[in-house]
Amino acid sequence: MEMNAQWVVGFVDGEGCFYVGINQNPEMRLGVQVLPEFTVVQHQVDVQVLYALKDYFGCGVVRQNHGTRMAYRVRGHQNLLNKIIPFFEKHHLKTRKRVDFAKFRKVVRLMDQKKHLEPEGLAKIRKIKDSMNSTSLSQHRVQI
Amino acid sequence: MEMNAQWVVGFVDGEGCFYVGINQNPEMRLGVQVLPEFTVVQHQVDVQVLYALKDYFGCGVVRQNHGTRMAYRVRGHQNLLNKIIPFFEKHHLKTRKRVDFAKFRKVVRLMDQKKHLEPEGLAKIRKIKDSMNSTSLSQHRVQI
Repeated sequence: MEMNAQWVVGFVDGEGCFYVGINQNPEMRLGVQVLPEFTVVQHQVDVQVLYALKDYFGCGVVRQNHGTRMAYRVRGHQNLLNKIIPFFEKHHLKTRKRVDFAKFRKVVRLMDQKKHLEPEGLAKIRKIKDSMNSTSLSQHRVQI
Repeated sequence: MEMNAQWVVGFVDGEGCFYVGINQNPEMRLGVQVLPEFTVVQHQVDVQVLYALKDYFGCGVVRQNHGTRMAYRVRGHQNLLNKIIPFFEKHHLKTRKRVDFAKFRKVVRLMDQKKHLEPEGLAKIRKIKDSMNSTSLSQHRVQI
């Protein structure tokens, strides 16, 4: 399957998700783990599109999501920092997902500076996370 | 908002729908009306993307769909035949929606030949419609 940057942006504007998970993990210094992930979910009939995205970005995995749905997922810090983020900096999203992307990038960069290992940095990340992936208009008013 | 054909294809692969409605209508010769429509639905925060699609295709309307969701919709026969269908013939969808598109095109062409006004043609359209917009793998086995 031949991929094109603009097709990828359009598809991610429709189906992509920039998500920051914050999970309890007693092994971590502050008792929580910050897990940013970029995902694209599709019904299994279109799993070949997810594998094409994996090839296109040169990173990530394709896994079962829920039931008949499959997910392309990138979690690796270096892959997010050096592959996913530069792609969407070069090729701009057109929907509100560009706002989520900007917040997601902020979190990944804070983590690159190890800020998530300090209480102040973690609080900042929590605040950013709480303002993401919302369909309410208020998200556009959050400072990023 | 600057639009690009490949972005449009990617976005429609994610969010678009090629749908054939068959509604009871006693005013029609066979008692039913066949209504093919191309739609793209978005949350109202992204309504500007729908207006950009309307401008890009040079046809259709943007209307409220359900609650906070808005829809870009093209129903006009000539617009489907001369604008929407040629666009997706030139710029190929990558997901299973290309199968729905091929069936949709078949229905619009049958209607262009007035086949929907004859019992045999209407039965053919019903059969095509019943095989569309399904997420089951069986759709790929239907002859179009």
